[in-house]
Amino acid sequence: MEQKAVSNYGATRRDFLAGWAVLTMAAALGATLQVAAQPQPTSAGLADPKLIEDLVAANRILVNQGVLDTLGHVSARHNRDPNRYLLARSRAPEMVSADDIIEYDLDSNPVDARGRPMNLERFIHGAVYKARPDVKAIVHNHSPSLIPFGVTGIPLRPIYHSAAFIGEGIPVFEIREAGGMTDMLVRDPALGGALARTLGNKPALLMRGHGAVVVGPSVPSVVRRSIQLEVNAKLQTQAMTLGGNITYLDPEEVRKIMAREDVALERSWELWKRKVMPK
Amino acid sequence: MEQKAVSNYGATRRDFLAGWAVLTMAAALGATLQVAAQPQPTSAGLADPKLIEDLVAANRILVNQGVLDTLGHVSARHNRDPNRYLLARSRAPEMVSADDIIEYDLDSNPVDARGRPMNLERFIHGAVYKARPDVKAIVHNHSPSLIPFGVTGIPLRPIYHSAAFIGEGIPVFEIREAGGMTDMLVRDPALGGALARTLGNKPALLMRGHGAVVVGPSVPSVVRRSIQLEVNAKLQTQAMTLGGNITYLDPEEVRKIMAREDVALERSWELWKRKVMPK
Amino acid sequence: MEQKAVSNYGATRRDFLAGWAVLTMAAALGATLQVAAQPQPTSAGLADPKLIEDLVAANRILVNQGVLDTLGHVSARHNRDPNRYLLARSRAPEMVSADDIIEYDLDSNPVDARGRPMNLERFIHGAVYKARPDVKAIVHNHSPSLIPFGVTGIPLRPIYHSAAFIGEGIPVFEIREAGGMTDMLVRDPALGGALARTLGNKPALLMRGHGAVVVGPSVPSVVRRSIQLEVNAKLQTQAMTLGGNITYLDPEEVRKIMAREDVALERSWELWKRKVMPK
Amino acid sequence: MEQKAVSNYGATRRDFLAGWAVLTMAAALGATLQVAAQPQPTSAGLADPKLIEDLVAANRILVNQGVLDTLGHVSARHNRDPNRYLLARSRAPEMVSADDIIEYDLDSNPVDARGRPMNLERFIHGAVYKARPDVKAIVHNHSPSLIPFGVTGIPLRPIYHSAAFIGEGIPVFEIREAGGMTDMLVRDPALGGALARTLGNKPALLMRGHGAVVVGPSVPSVVRRSIQLEVNAKLQTQAMTLGGNITYLDPEEVRKIMAREDVALERSWELWKRKVMPK
Repeated sequence: MEQKAVSNYGATRRDFLAGWAVLTMAAALGATLQVAAQPQPTSAGLADPKLIEDLVAANRILVNQGVLDTLGHVSARHNRDPNRYLLARSRAPEMVSADDIIEYDLDSNPVDARGRPMNLERFIHGAVYKARPDVKAIVHNHSPSLIPFGVTGIPLRPIYHSAAFIGEGIPVFEIREAGGMTDMLVRDPALGGALARTLGNKPALLMRGHGAVVVGPSVPSVVRRSIQLEVNAKLQTQAMTLGGNITYLDPEEVRKIMAREDVALERSWELWKRKVMPK
Repeated sequence: MEQKAVSNYGATRRDFLAGWAVLTMAAALGATLQVAAQPQPTSAGLADPKLIEDLVAANRILVNQGVLDTLGHVSARHNRDPNRYLLARSRAPEMVSADDIIEYDLDSNPVDARGRPMNLERFIHGAVYKARPDVKAIVHNHSPSLIPFGVTGIPLRPIYHSAAFIGEGIPVFEIREAGGMTDMLVRDPALGGALARTLGNKPALLMRGHGAVVVGPSVPSVVRRSIQLEVNAKLQTQAMTLGGNITYLDPEEVRKIMAREDVALERSWELWKRKVMPK
Repeated sequence: MEQKAVSNYGATRRDFLAGWAVLTMAAALGATLQVAAQPQPTSAGLADPKLIEDLVAANRILVNQGVLDTLGHVSARHNRDPNRYLLARSRAPEMVSADDIIEYDLDSNPVDARGRPMNLERFIHGAVYKARPDVKAIVHNHSPSLIPFGVTGIPLRPIYHSAAFIGEGIPVFEIREAGGMTDMLVRDPALGGALARTLGNKPALLMRGHGAVVVGPSVPSVVRRSIQLEVNAKLQTQAMTLGGNITYLDPEEVRKIMAREDVALERSWELWKRKVMPK
Repeated sequence: MEQKAVSNYGATRRDFLAGWAVLTMAAALGATLQVAAQPQPTSAGLADPKLIEDLVAANRILVNQGVLDTLGHVSARHNRDPNRYLLARSRAPEMVSADDIIEYDLDSNPVDARGRPMNLERFIHGAVYKARPDVKAIVHNHSPSLIPFGVTGIPLRPIYHSAAFIGEGIPVFEIREAGGMTDMLVRDPALGGALARTLGNKPALLMRGHGAVVVGPSVPSVVRRSIQLEVNAKLQTQAMTLGGNITYLDPEEVRKIMAREDVALERSWELWKRKVMPK
């Protein structure tokens, strides 16, 4: 801090020191205020324990089903407040437990991380929850059979009825368009927003050279869709290998199936959850 | 109910109330009779416990072998009455137990569902049992390697001896021909009948964009055929990838193998069943 | 039996009955002798318990490794007598135990089946042991990745060093050449002999539309070769998918590797056996 | 030893025996010196127990992940001395324990093998540690999806962000260039040196018709790279099957990802290690 020459008219040494102290404290306070420009959001309160339990189960189910590896994550919108969502700390999905869940606002600021490391790509979740009030759960994965579609630009199309939602369209997010040459991680709100804009109102998108983002109206729904995307990609690859003309689902078939999309969901969820959660 | 003006010639107030009561009861009775237009079939009695046990085992074996997922189902014709069949309530096959088995007539009306939810596509089973007196067990599955054949129209052909029955022909059921654009489920007797007509006298058919239906003279037989269909589809896909001219089984080879089709069945069933049933 | 008219010169009624009895017994004895035209070979004595143990382990290892399914079998030449071999009764390989092992002569007659059902295709083993004094163990399997090679006639070639023995040549046995249109099983010595002639001095052959036969100088060796055949077939399929020119092992490389073929065998066998046998 | 005629001038019998004894001892000493031309290197002392533990875990993790079979091996540079490295005795990786670890110098001479059989191809490790001071851990594997790339010469390229290091280039080691027609094993320092020269400063190389060698700055890093190489090879194969133009990672993307390559490594290592090591 620049020290200005002051005349000694009536000012004592103590005056100078006092003045200096005040300036120092003011500077410190100002610095603190600047650090705290990152708001600490208030909690929406305890989430429904069943929602937390489903979120933990979802992590394990998706590892079981070959959709999630040691990376990737699952989140759910807070049941008490649409401006909060729940996402595990940075940890292999297979190891996630209820204690690992962190509450975030839609700018992906943590309510109380308590020193737990955060997923670098939480901005995917926050940005999509912001743009999509209908979405209640999100999966980010490196689902293997999807990646070749993302890098070739060959459109995923619905081969069988369990994956009808693919008929609504699965866009490809090319991160170069939003951020040029990057390290390929959606590591800030700007990239998160670009991804959400690419997603639009679709049920999922592919991230070129990275993986996928899947959304749904509930945790069981987004888990089912993630599994079905991987299956459909495998089947579509095999069908294209066989050659010949492929009959995909007709848009009218897609609409009719979407009208009853979750009719068998509870039946599948019951089994998947039972296999990964202790009694 | 419309109240008609009546003259008061000789009728008392009590008369009117009595008349009204009679009309109300008559209307209620008529409504009840209309609700009960869906018959409640009589039971054929207790099924052979070994048949029930084999049916439960079949569900688990087919999940183990990658043929059944959380959807799909297995049924058996009742041993006491060819006009009854046994099918689990709507439940992931991996979780099916003896208590889940419901008895149906061939119109797929339940004898006594006891509030248990029923498989939407039970009409597949009823219609095929009706059309095929020789069939004693049926599997409906989403066997993954079969689906690309159904959507490309490339005929499944017998690559190796364990799948010789494929040589009898595996038709493709295109639901659009029977029901136009639907949600792809065989959810009523009309669609079930159309499927049965497509099946004809064949050992299985593919449901385009959906899965397959496999039939057989016993539960072990239909389980073996379901497994072999999936294997043959994988091998045929790989052979087509290699290229070159493929030597499939000759019709005479098919006939000779079919004459001894089940010679090794007990050997396989012994192992499969042991691996899924508690001692 | 035709009753001839006989005169009554000096013959009594008792004479007739006696004569009849003698003829009946003679006929029965003759019938018995004809049934026993199938020799009952003598045993070579108790086989080395370690050999039996390795044979049981081989069955389980090959199921573990995806080479054997519920069918297929493994045999070993008897350590005491080259004219005897050991093969399990007809049973899923996963379930084979020491009590299931039956001793056979090289015409595949059992020493003492004790009513246990025999493998229909034991004639593969007997015929190959007859033709190949160097062979000490044989596997017959339906190894899945091999079958497409057998039906397309595309030659299996050694892609990597662990499968160098493929460089000696893997012929294809087309059963039509030996038996016309059959049920595809090597169910008698004639077909067994035809298979052995096709095998020649090679380490394995493919049975078109059926599977493979693999031979070796020991049980561990034939197990390793069976596993490596399956792996090589998968890799060759993938390499052909990638396209381009494939560099296979050179015949000189094959020779040099075959000179040290079993240098790492004990290391692999130690692990495979430990994983399937109780302590 | 040739016995020379000596005259008996003043020499006694004792003299002869003493002379004989001296000559014998001298010969023995000379023989010992020749045997000991293979130096016995001195130990660098006890390695960090955590390093040994990670090395044992790495073996098991890579088997779990389908990268290592019964052959192949993992090594680590000694934490106390860059001129020593640690490698298990010749044993299936799945069975390796801390007692199996042998310390070597960079010519791959063992400090104290104690009669334990040594990996024939340890010369891969020694030669690479010599040439690459930055390398702290090495994997030699027969990673299946890599082998078709090695034999077709189709370059491995980075399809997705977790395998960005592939963008630095993965050379192919063709052993014929260094050793002509061999048994394909890197069984001496000359071949090890040729392999290290082919590796240059790259993160891995493919051994044509054999497998791969992967290097890294730590045991967790080389494990992660080995797993990602196998995954990338599978995805690249599938993408090439789909056809069309493949968008690989841009060199700038590769550089940016490499700058943060290990940011998520601890997260993956935590899970992988937990699944294979007893508590």
